[in-house]
This record gives sequence, structure tokens and C-alpha cells, in this order.
Amino acid sequence: MNSKRKVAVLGATGVVGQRFIQLLLGHPWFEISALTSSERNVGKRFADVNRWHFPAKEVPDEIANMKLQPTTPDLDADIVFSALSESAQVQEAELAKTGHHVFSNVKTHRMDADVPLVIAEVNPDHGRALKAQRAKRGWSGSIVTNGNCSTVHFVLAVAPLHRAYGIKRAVVTTMQSLSGASYPGVASLDTVDNVVPFIGGEEEKIDIETRKFLGTWDERAERFVDADIVLSAHCNRVTVRDGHTETASLELGGSPSIAEVTACLREFRGRPQELSLPSAPKRPIIVRDEPDRPQPLLDRDAENGMASTVGRIREDPVLGVKLVLLGHNTIRGAAGASVLNAELFAAEGLV
Amino acid sequence: MNSKRKVAVLGATGVVGQRFIQLLLGHPWFEISALTSSERNVGKRFADVNRWHFPAKEVPDEIANMKLQPTTPDLDADIVFSALSESAQVQEAELAKTGHHVFSNVKTHRMDADVPLVIAEVNPDHGRALKAQRAKRGWSGSIVTNGNCSTVHFVLAVAPLHRAYGIKRAVVTTMQSLSGASYPGVASLDTVDNVVPFIGGEEEKIDIETRKFLGTWDERAERFVDADIVLSAHCNRVTVRDGHTETASLELGGSPSIAEVTACLREFRGRPQELSLPSAPKRPIIVRDEPDRPQPLLDRDAENGMASTVGRIREDPVLGVKLVLLGHNTIRGAAGASVLNAELFAAEGLV
Amino acid sequence: MNSKRKVAVLGATGVVGQRFIQLLLGHPWFEISALTSSERNVGKRFADVNRWHFPAKEVPDEIANMKLQPTTPDLDADIVFSALSESAQVQEAELAKTGHHVFSNVKTHRMDADVPLVIAEVNPDHGRALKAQRAKRGWSGSIVTNGNCSTVHFVLAVAPLHRAYGIKRAVVTTMQSLSGASYPGVASLDTVDNVVPFIGGEEEKIDIETRKFLGTWDERAERFVDADIVLSAHCNRVTVRDGHTETASLELGGSPSIAEVTACLREFRGRPQELSLPSAPKRPIIVRDEPDRPQPLLDRDAENGMASTVGRIREDPVLGVKLVLLGHNTIRGAAGASVLNAELFAAEGLV
Amino acid sequence: MNSKRKVAVLGATGVVGQRFIQLLLGHPWFEISALTSSERNVGKRFADVNRWHFPAKEVPDEIANMKLQPTTPDLDADIVFSALSESAQVQEAELAKTGHHVFSNVKTHRMDADVPLVIAEVNPDHGRALKAQRAKRGWSGSIVTNGNCSTVHFVLAVAPLHRAYGIKRAVVTTMQSLSGASYPGVASLDTVDNVVPFIGGEEEKIDIETRKFLGTWDERAERFVDADIVLSAHCNRVTVRDGHTETASLELGGSPSIAEVTACLREFRGRPQELSLPSAPKRPIIVRDEPDRPQPLLDRDAENGMASTVGRIREDPVLGVKLVLLGHNTIRGAAGASVLNAELFAAEGLV
Repeated sequence: MNSKRKVAVLGATGVVGQRFIQLLLGHPWFEISALTSSERNVGKRFADVNRWHFPAKEVPDEIANMKLQPTTPDLDADIVFSALSESAQVQEAELAKTGHHVFSNVKTHRMDADVPLVIAEVNPDHGRALKAQRAKRGWSGSIVTNGNCSTVHFVLAVAPLHRAYGIKRAVVTTMQSLSGASYPGVASLDTVDNVVPFIGGEEEKIDIETRKFLGTWDERAERFVDADIVLSAHCNRVTVRDGHTETASLELGGSPSIAEVTACLREFRGRPQELSLPSAPKRPIIVRDEPDRPQPLLDRDAENGMASTVGRIREDPVLGVKLVLLGHNTIRGAAGASVLNAELFAAEGLV
Repeated sequence: MNSKRKVAVLGATGVVGQRFIQLLLGHPWFEISALTSSERNVGKRFADVNRWHFPAKEVPDEIANMKLQPTTPDLDADIVFSALSESAQVQEAELAKTGHHVFSNVKTHRMDADVPLVIAEVNPDHGRALKAQRAKRGWSGSIVTNGNCSTVHFVLAVAPLHRAYGIKRAVVTTMQSLSGASYPGVASLDTVDNVVPFIGGEEEKIDIETRKFLGTWDERAERFVDADIVLSAHCNRVTVRDGHTETASLELGGSPSIAEVTACLREFRGRPQELSLPSAPKRPIIVRDEPDRPQPLLDRDAENGMASTVGRIREDPVLGVKLVLLGHNTIRGAAGASVLNAELFAAEGLV
Repeated sequence: MNSKRKVAVLGATGVVGQRFIQLLLGHPWFEISALTSSERNVGKRFADVNRWHFPAKEVPDEIANMKLQPTTPDLDADIVFSALSESAQVQEAELAKTGHHVFSNVKTHRMDADVPLVIAEVNPDHGRALKAQRAKRGWSGSIVTNGNCSTVHFVLAVAPLHRAYGIKRAVVTTMQSLSGASYPGVASLDTVDNVVPFIGGEEEKIDIETRKFLGTWDERAERFVDADIVLSAHCNRVTVRDGHTETASLELGGSPSIAEVTACLREFRGRPQELSLPSAPKRPIIVRDEPDRPQPLLDRDAENGMASTVGRIREDPVLGVKLVLLGHNTIRGAAGASVLNAELFAAEGLV
Repeated sequence: MNSKRKVAVLGATGVVGQRFIQLLLGHPWFEISALTSSERNVGKRFADVNRWHFPAKEVPDEIANMKLQPTTPDLDADIVFSALSESAQVQEAELAKTGHHVFSNVKTHRMDADVPLVIAEVNPDHGRALKAQRAKRGWSGSIVTNGNCSTVHFVLAVAPLHRAYGIKRAVVTTMQSLSGASYPGVASLDTVDNVVPFIGGEEEKIDIETRKFLGTWDERAERFVDADIVLSAHCNRVTVRDGHTETASLELGGSPSIAEVTACLREFRGRPQELSLPSAPKRPIIVRDEPDRPQPLLDRDAENGMASTVGRIREDPVLGVKLVLLGHNTIRGAAGASVLNAELFAAEGLV
């Protein structure tokens, strides 16, 4: 008897869509029942549409031969992972209305007042919003979003500090990988022997999403309330395949020592670890002591790409504490975040 | 009649030494009379020792055939450009003692209380220290230093703001090029598909050198007094051949508008521009309006590599103003800085 | 009095179109009178359409402000440089009909029986075909093509050997640069830590174009006759900005020694050198003796990108002689080839 | 009861030495009992000497804590894997004399008349030489070598064709990865935006090793007899981390069709597959049908890096057949080749 829940991947042929498939292959709770794509590829075999982005891991035949479907409300799936383009607003809402539980990587609904923006270790309690979401919108399903790839790793890596001491102000500079711009994405002539110090919309997302992630759900008002943090982000594209590296200067309450900050991060465990969720990293934050880590090549795949790695924790003359953080942008920073969210919400009985 | 001053390049075969040669070829005031190298290459032809690092520009025969000399006090040169390794302390001092005017790229003497650390546009008045330096040390020559490559561009790009408004605090993150680590320098296996978020000693140099550059010469006490700026630097190595890119968040006095900050940088001219020194860039700071500039590939060679390029000047929620700055690390950030310093000191009659 | 001939650049905003502009700026004989573009950009300022691809050399104001025109037969220009897409067939012919002399980088007409495919040093006599071309087609203008970028450098580098000894068979493997695929061209995710061993249509072009370049014009039959050479090409894309590197194994008639082959290449000069054409390299082929040259980074810009550089000339156990050759693909391999052709045809009174 | 055979890794801290360790971790037949290093690191913990080169896979504690030993004849190991530098001649022979079975990645003994140079699928019968080797040299142990990394993949990929049709002549051009030069190896300034068309000694190795691999053991004369193949190699370094890509033009006996060549390669299985050796790839040669494969990024890790991947099999106008082949240079091209050899020789009772 197969009791796995049926899941669909929306926008299955792109970089993030393929990551969803990769992470769902052999999943103990979920089983891929449908793949959707944009209009022009509907009806084609998955394998005929785009190259498979993951070296040395062939797409298995059962996926390769699946016919791509349109993204319609009658999708035969209980849980739906969305890697749609930003025109996703209507489609995700229609699916939620018809009983699908949408775990989305799309930015469209992230800042909606009743849509949880969740990192499973950081703000699992934001799931309480689903009740209001369903009531207000008349949905039998739901939408839960993850966050922007740079933001997810920044927030995961500093959330324990916010919980323990309160983050007042932060300056963060990202050095983001090419896969963050999908495929074909960044032109090679822009990357060989170059850095591009601009990524459209990214700095704003780090600002607003961080404050929502670290904020609270106001049960009475039925809306999320932002955390009171002042943030400044500088976003850059560097010539790395996967893995966003970020330097952060933080102003914390209570002036903890470097040893206290280090211990706080190293010891952090969240709800996914308590529940031993299938995709949960054992250590959501890995703290490294070497002077020159984390590095994308060496650290992005730690805990199967589901952890953030932090290093160089030291005093910052301007804001108090500084560090380097790094994480895999298409795993924990995108598809993996939503898969873990779905596991959390399923385990908690919320979907 | 040839009235050019004789100049020597110390440590002529490395990346910076070769840059000195390149910048001095055809110089209107200076003529290369000697090249020195480490012990094991003394006596060899310059061209036989190391590859010439500059594409499509062959080393001219008169340089290729020069015999490498040891770095000794009897060097037949009036002005001496030093790209020695850090063991340079004794050799530079001996040359200064015997009447040579040393313009050094080496860090050894940069923080000495009576040695000017000079960016020609920023603190030309620091040259006044030479009188005390000579008196105190009994030298007929002198030592003048440039600065660390990341620091030079940071300081050049923000100096006008310090002069106009006062910089109180700054957080700067660098994305530094490979040539900054000389040749062979960084291993290729550390750079393909990677970022290294650490460069030994670099963050400290940005801190202490910036405050000396922007500080003052105390005539009475015969020592330099640091500027009162609090700095935090994060230094990273990225896969770029030449050109350091830096993101900076600045807290300025007097809360200038973004328009005022932009105008202040764009209009800046210094003493080298007034004197029309041979190597002076017409615009020491280039301000670009495109949303995605400066980029190392596109901007490092602006003004023959002698300018800093600034872009993305905008409000910073944490410190007030933020921007991206970029400059060529082995030209304006190293050899070119010292050549311009030598021109300045010669023009001012200081050497 | 300005007696320069008016020239237009067709398809001016792409990588090759911009190269044409760059090479024509300040040209002693030619003056840019018009720039054309695809429909959707007609009417816009040149500078508003695409980024300028050449670092540290800003596009001059007179070009930046030119309005892009459609490619129509009434173009106000005498000579026309074409960097159109492959849909160029109709447009180039219409221009030739109306008296324009088209020097084209497009492959459309390269293999036409009466269209010269010319490398100025290799087969300047192919220009004799223009008379027949005009007569047969009823054109007052003409079309002259350059060749595929890989082929141009292969042919330029081996043509002296063909002339002296006859090339019977050749195996050539290319390692081609990213700019050869134009902009945006190759996706960065296909290039970081990768080689792509395939470039559509390239191997065929090397085969057929080489035989035409090295063939003869049959005056009687009014058509070109291919050289009798058997060729096999393997084409690869590598992560280099500019410059195609090619390894070649050659079977020559007469079994010349390596010394003879070397001297034959080194001493080669062609008609452009005899005529001292403005864009002619002094040495069309540069032979290097170092064991590890040519390299794209170090050699692509030799002679302003107008030469081919050859190295590692040595015995080949299979075919007799082998070597490495290299050249700039968008200068001598594209725009520069056509500019030199135009100079040649103008100097010879053919256009 | 642990019945695993004790194995040592000589030169354990380099790129290939680490690969040996990685491939031997959890091996069903072998257990690492000793790691050796050069003099200056003897006595140190393995983990303290060099960085671990394999992303996201930490070196396990039992290896990390092993003390590095000198390479001496009293090494407590039965089988010895050698990643020594080329000064290995004396040390390997002394170990073989004292009963150790040396499986070496070093070139020192590869061409010795009585030392097998083995690819387990290609020439397993060359193991018969060990009897003569031991008799002649008075060794109780033995030396078996693998081959140069480029050669191993070339030979593995074409051996079935040699067996079926006979290879008469071949022209091969390699595009080799950076890890082939070990660490630190190639300087990053030589690789960003560049190709180096030279690798010292590599072309000669492809020539002589291929002929030995594909040759025969003359039982009577007690020496290996080379295959009668004429080869020409062009070797290049490209900016790829791992995986050598090679283009090959082949002249075969009997003029097989492309379909026959393809089937011959696709169906090939060898002795390791018959014996189901632990490290044997299921398919030693993978034939791909896509027009643009193999690519290092996508294919180097196929079959855990133990296969060669072949693509673009097509007619060659010069020699008859051409193709692209690719394989992982430090796995199947180095450490993995020797591990598989040791498995083969152990399974066959030869060591």
C-alpha cells in the first residue's frame, strides 16, 4: 500500500523546478504525481524540454517520461511546489482555492499580510496564519512561501542571535552565485573576469523579508508584524555556480561576547530537528573555525545543501559583531526550503 | 641632452615590479637606470627571469636586456620605486640614507610615525614630514609609501566626503582580484567556482591605513595623527584578474543628500590635477550613473587605471550613504600610486 | 575638405557590429555615416540600445548619439560593413544592387560561386570575381565576405605552407572563445568549470571555407574552384573571453623540415603589407618560440588583434607537422578582416 | 572478525593521495592502515597538513587523526597505493622487495620492461608479467602501475576499437583540467580568461603509454611489446576543475561504420565487470547521443568517476572516425585506476 501524498511541481523545467524534483525523488512522504510547465512545453516529455542541471545524476526514467501539464486548478496533487515565474499570482491562488497546499518559491505572495513566509527552524509558529488565510480567502487549500535565496541564509544564520539578543541593525554584502539567476540567466561574457555589483530587487527583498521572517503573527489583527530591525544590503553577482556568500556586520542587544555568539549559533536547533523531518539538516547552522571558511566550493553542500555555514565570527568596530555566512541558494535557499516547510506543515497537521 | 632623472625599480620581476616598468616606459621625467631582484636572479637578463605579465605589450628590448642587480646602497638612481617583499626594511632605509628617494609599495614603513603614506590627491601635504624624517634619521634621501591596494581605492573614493562632511563610521566589503596576491599567488583550484572570504592582514590594513591617510601631520610633535574614523572591513578574494570592487556604507557628518554626495565626488580634483602631473588622471574619481556599474572588467582601466570609479550612490538605512567603488589594484592601487607620488614630490621640490 | 568615404555598419549594436565601429573610429580613409539595427531599435540612440562591449574605451559621443536606422537600400554610405544576422541575404543583395559595396561578416553569401571569400593576405586575387559578380547580377555595388572566425585564423596561419608546399590533409581542433557566440550568447552556467565540445555548424564551415579561401578563381567558368584539401575539424567552446586557440596536424607536400616550415610562416608577408594598408598588421603571422605559447590572454591582441600567432611548430608522427595557432576572433576573425578587405579593395580600385 | 587487507597510501596529502583515501573509505576488501608523507610532515596529524580537497565530504576522524609516517620498507601494509612524487623509484622498489604489492600512480616504473601498465578492462592479462618481475628482481612483492590521466581515458575509450578493428593512427587533442596539475598547481592568473596549450611531458606519455597499454606481454622474452599504433597528441590546459576532455581522430582497420563503432563502444565490458569488482563501473564506456556531450561538468562523475564517456561519434574525412571522450582525471585517471587494478589483481590471486 502506497500512502505517500501526491505532490506536483509547478514550473518543473527550470533550475529551481528541477531542484524540487531532485529533492522529492525517493522522498519518504511525498510522491511526484504531476509536473507543469509554461504553455509552449505542455504535452512534451519532461526530458525533451530542457537539459537536466545536475551533473552525474541522470533524471530517472519515470520523471523523464512524464508529460508536462498546464498549471490548472484540477491538478491531481495534494501538495504543490511552485517554481513558477512571477506571473504566478493567479495560478497559485486558484490552486489554493481548490484545496491544494501550495509551498511556493515565488515572490508574488511572500509579503501578503496573511501568507506565512517561513524558514522551518526560524518561524514555524507563523503557520498559525493559515487558519485566518483560509477563512478570509475562502480557500480549502493554502499558500506558504519560502523566501529570497540570499535572505533565507542570512536569516537562518542570524535568527538565533535575534532570538537571544535582538538584532538592532545589520549591514550585509552578498556575493551571489550564477544559478540564482536561473538558466540561461547571466551571460558568460558578463562573468568571466568580472563582478556585477547589482541584482535587481534583491536588496529590497533582503530588507523586507528579513523583517517579516523575524517578526510575529498578530492573532488578533490577523496579520504579520515586522521585526524592528534596520537593514542595509549590498548585492553582488560573482562567478560561482552555486552558493551565496554573505558578509554581515550586526548590532546586537546586550553586547554578547564572540564566544557567546559562536555558542549561540553552534548550538542552535529548531523544530525540524526536534521532529526529525526527512529533509532537516542535523545542524541547521554549521560554525567553522578555520580562518578562511566558509567557501562556496567547500561548504555549499554541507548537510545536503540544507544548512547555512558561518565562519569568521569576530568583533566589528562599527556594529559589534561580524561574520561570514554561506548557503546553497537553490537547495536551502529555494526548493529545499519549501520541501522542509511542507514536511513541517504536514507533521504539525497544518496541511 | 637628456635631463631625465634616473630611477630604479626594486623587485622588478614580480607583478608590481613589472607594472612599475610598464608605467615608467616613455615617462617624460624619469628614465629607468637599474632593475633589482632577489639574490638568485642577480646577473640574469630581465627577460629571462619571469614571464611578462601584460598581454600584447611586449617588454621592449632595452628593458629585456637589462641585467638584474642586487638591491644595494650604491644603486645608480636618484629615485627608487620599491616592489620588494616585506623584508624590505633594511634595504629601503639604506637606500634612503645614501640619498635615494624611495617611493615604496611595501608595507614595512607605511605606519612609521615620520613616513608619509600618500595618495597624491588626498594628502599631498603629508610630504611636509620629509624634513623631519631626514633630520631625525640622518638621511639625505627619503621614504614615501603608497598604501594597500584596497585601501588606496577606498580612501581615494571617499576622501572628498571626509573633507566635506567628515566620515564617522564605515563598513566596507571588498571583492579583490587575483593579481593582488601576485604571481603565482592564488591557486587556480581555489578560484574556479569559488570565493575565498579571507585575505591575511588586509582588513587590518584598511583600518589603520585609512586613518593615517585621512589624518594630519603634527608639525610640532613631528608625527602623524590619525583621523577619528571607526572602520570595519570584510575582505574577500573573487575570480577577477585585476580590479578590486568594494561596497561601502558610510556615516557622514551633516547628513548630506545623495545629490550632494554625488556632486562632491564627481567634482573632486586634487593637487596632481592642478599640477597636470604626467600620470595624473583627469578625473581622479569617476561617478557612473548606470545601475550596475562599476564592474572590474569595464571600469578598472578608466583613466589608464589611475582613477577610482564610484557608482550606485544611494541611501543606507543603517549608516546613511552607501555606494560601490572600484579601482585597478596594481596600477592606482600599487605601482601607479607611487609613480604619481614621485611626480608630485618632484614637482613640489620635495625630492 | 573631408575626402573620407562614407561607411555604414549594419547590425551595429551586437558584438561584431561594435567591433566594426571601434575599428573604424579615426580611420584615415573611412568615416561612419550610418548605423543600422533590427526593427525594434530603429530610431533609438546607439548608446541606449546595448552595453558597449569594450572595457575602458567609452563609445565617443558622435557615435553614442547616432540614431539607428533600418537596413534599407537608400542608406547614405558608399561602403557598408555587415554584421547582420543570417537573415541578411535579401538586405545585402539589395544594397549591392543599389551601388553599395558590402563587406560582410555574415555567412549567407560566403559560399556563393561568384562572391569572393577573402583574407587580404591570402587570396587578394579573388577580388577579380567582382567583375563577373556585377555583370551576372546586374549590381552596381558588390558583396565581399570574410570568413568564419575559426577558419580565418586557421587559413591565415597555414596559407603560406599551402602556397609553398601544398596542404594535403589537416586535422584541426579549436578551443573557441565566448565572444564568438555574441552577446548574451553562451550561458554562464554552461561555462564555469566546463568545456562544451560542440559549436553548431562550425566544423562544416572550417571545411568548406578553407577550401574556398585556398582555391582559385576560374576566370573562364566565372566561379571559384576549391583547393584539394581534406580537412577534419573538432570544435569546442572554452571559458575564454576573446581569442580562438587551435591545434593543427598538417600533411604537406614535399616534406619540409620544421625549420623550413617555421621560416616560411615567419617570413610571410602579403599584399596588405606591400600596400601598407591602414589596418594591416606588420607581421600577419607571428611565430613564437616559447614552449607554451600562443595563449589567448597573452597573444590575442598582438598587432592590434590583426595577426595570427603560431607556436609549438614540431613534427607530427601521423601527418608530418603540428602546431598551435591563435587569433582574435572578433577582430581579425570578424570585423577586422572585413575592414582590411575594404582597404585592400579600395586600394586596388575594385570598389 | 575483520579480514580486510591492510593498505597504505604513499604521498597521502596531495590531490591524488587524498583521492586514494576517499576511494578506500569503507572499501569492502581494503582497510587503510598507514599514510605516508614527505619528510617535513612526518609525525603530524593528516588533517593538520593540507586542506581536504573534496567539497562537502569531511575527512572522517579516524583518517584525520592518523599520524603521517615516512615511506619506509617496514610499512605495516600488504597493498600499497602510491601517489608519491617522481622521486619514487627507490621507495617503491624497496617496498616491493619487502613483500608489499605496490599499485602506483607514479610514472617512474610505468615503462619498465617487466612492470605491468594496466587498465583493468583493457589489458588485465598484462598481470602475467608479475611472475617474471618477481623472479628477475628478487622481489616478494610487486609493482603495478596505472597510467597518465589523459592516456587512461583515451585508451579505455578506444581499446574496444583496437581489439575489434585495430587502430592504425590517431590524432588526439586534450583539454585537461586543473586538478591534473595537483595543488597548488596552476596559478589562477594563468587560467582566468586563458588556455595554456602545453603540458610538459604529457604528449610523450600519451604516445608511449598507449602503445604499451594496447601491446602484449611476450612470455618468452619476458617483456612487453608495444602495439603498432602511430599517435600524435596535442595537450592543453583549460579552466576546468576536474575532467579531461579529448577529441580524437582515428584510423581503424576494416573500415567499420559509425553504427558499428558506436555499438562496439557501447557494448564493451571487461574483466572487472565480469568479476563485479567493488570499484568497477557497470559501464566502463558510456556512449551519449546528444550533440553536445560529453561535458566535464555533466559527465566526469558518471559511474562515480570510474567510466569514460564518449560522444559525437562521426565520420572523419582524414582518418575515418572521430569522437569526443571524457573522464575524471583524479578518479579513473589516477587513484581509481589503481584501486581497481588492486581489486583485479587480488581477485585473480596475483597479489
